[in-house]
Amino acid sequence: MIGSTGHVGYVLQDVPYSNVDIVGVSPGSDGEGIDGLYSKVKEFSPRCQVFTDYHSMLDELRPDLVVVACQFGDLAQVIIEALSRNIHVFAEKPMALTLEELIGVRQAYSEAKVHLAAMFGIRYHPSFLTAWEQVRNGKIGYVRLISAQKSYKLGDRPAFFRKRETCGGTIPWVGIHAVDWVHWFSGERFVSVFASHSRLCNQGHGDLEVAASCHFTLTNEVAASITIDYFRPESALSHDDDRLRVVGTDGIIEVKDGHVYLLNADNDGQESLPFVAERGIFADFVAQIRGLGQCLVSAEDSFYAARAALLARQSADENRLLYFD
Amino acid sequence: MIGSTGHVGYVLQDVPYSNVDIVGVSPGSDGEGIDGLYSKVKEFSPRCQVFTDYHSMLDELRPDLVVVACQFGDLAQVIIEALSRNIHVFAEKPMALTLEELIGVRQAYSEAKVHLAAMFGIRYHPSFLTAWEQVRNGKIGYVRLISAQKSYKLGDRPAFFRKRETCGGTIPWVGIHAVDWVHWFSGERFVSVFASHSRLCNQGHGDLEVAASCHFTLTNEVAASITIDYFRPESALSHDDDRLRVVGTDGIIEVKDGHVYLLNADNDGQESLPFVAERGIFADFVAQIRGLGQCLVSAEDSFYAARAALLARQSADENRLLYFD
Repeated sequence: MIGSTGHVGYVLQDVPYSNVDIVGVSPGSDGEGIDGLYSKVKEFSPRCQVFTDYHSMLDELRPDLVVVACQFGDLAQVIIEALSRNIHVFAEKPMALTLEELIGVRQAYSEAKVHLAAMFGIRYHPSFLTAWEQVRNGKIGYVRLISAQKSYKLGDRPAFFRKRETCGGTIPWVGIHAVDWVHWFSGERFVSVFASHSRLCNQGHGDLEVAASCHFTLTNEVAASITIDYFRPESALSHDDDRLRVVGTDGIIEVKDGHVYLLNADNDGQESLPFVAERGIFADFVAQIRGLGQCLVSAEDSFYAARAALLARQSADENRLLYFD
Repeated sequence: MIGSTGHVGYVLQDVPYSNVDIVGVSPGSDGEGIDGLYSKVKEFSPRCQVFTDYHSMLDELRPDLVVVACQFGDLAQVIIEALSRNIHVFAEKPMALTLEELIGVRQAYSEAKVHLAAMFGIRYHPSFLTAWEQVRNGKIGYVRLISAQKSYKLGDRPAFFRKRETCGGTIPWVGIHAVDWVHWFSGERFVSVFASHSRLCNQGHGDLEVAASCHFTLTNEVAASITIDYFRPESALSHDDDRLRVVGTDGIIEVKDGHVYLLNADNDGQESLPFVAERGIFADFVAQIRGLGQCLVSAEDSFYAARAALLARQSADENRLLYFD
């Protein structure tokens, strides 16, 4: 495991069910503390070693799989190091902070014979997975329109969040989940994006955008609106308020407050649907490597959402409509 | 009253409290039936006369005020006829279906010494009015981001809905309410719009767009996302599903299902706020004419929302970012 900044919880919660041994941990970014991560890891992997340099760790341990969860600005180079050693990669998103870096990651992936998935763990939340199964089973007909929301508490974010070079921006870090939902639920390809974002009123967080809005058009004239904000009051009961609304020709499905509401000829949308069986993203990824299953997040999905989020950020930076090719 | 196609209910419900006498009704569009309207009007205005030609009615009766609610493609010319006779106008929105027509209406208004308001009656729904008062009273701080939703049942719409020339399109007819909310709640001016819309899967409704999405940027880097659809299932409990979410520096307020939810340091957003006292848009407009009050919808607001909706439609038609001047 390289880095402890990202969502290492996805790994830690699935390790007991995945028959894996965590053999080493190291920082992936300058000054990144890993004591907290190590103290959790050694509970189920007592032989785990601590390294200060991840290159040495990879060369010495030659692991089958590496988890990359360092600071966002270092993700691309760490992922490339792992891929160049033919190691499977489970990585924090976005896997790169610039389109150029992303091309480099993709190139390294195409030359390796490994599996790769980005941490789009919200796909695995029972509410999102249940809603997706409903859409896939035709319960809302053809998807025509999507709106999605990401709303977080800002709190007091560490220094690397406050610089564009080290954080990447709010659309790639927070909005990317909603970008991924749009693609995943619709099954369509992105055609264009117009986005805007603002740093105003960011409570001293430097470059960090605290509000953003993205308008994607997709194939078959599907449109998607995404709003992203860091203005969720500190007093709110939860950190985040993720929402998704997918409008189809035969119904409308929504994810809100961790529940799923379906409105169609057979459902009045008043009661939350029962959830499908729970799955874990890391457990699924490990199963895929072993040829025993299929992770819901493919390498292609991981690259596609990253590229879309980075294009959306560029649209907002340059205030113009951008096309996908 | 000219025409019975639009929201004449705003007038009929307020007449008993407005000390007005409805002296005449006539169609405003070819073939527009007004029997149903007349039968309701004569209950409280028994002397009301029926005309077949609104020009004759205006010339003969010389009313103080005219209500214009004909088919959408005829609104502009009827409004101009009324304004040119110095008659106050309470009119269906959008007051024109093209930017050129809108300039004509505005010119006629500027030359008359009368009041004018468009039927932005949703402002007067207790939920929207309550939410607006909260924002105006600083309960969410500075507005930073808005998302709004209009979702209607399609049903089987009359023929004039199926042609762009006679209907104007879904952004100007349905979306305009949300456009108005964005301006009204934020207090900001529109800077740019990118929009998209689609006629696919419109159940034989010709030109009618059944899905649309608008992305407005406003002064002070405020952004607003609006989604509009006609895909609300016929089985749904209500015709419409109007929603508004306004994100501010100190809180977030939402209108949903006719309720208002406020999340800030003092409110956990779980319970609907009590409503402010009810007011009627037509009663308010009449009071304004009498110098006894102020309608929440000004002539300026009416023109501004119409122009913004027409620019959004143009953006969607031409698939490009458009700027307000």
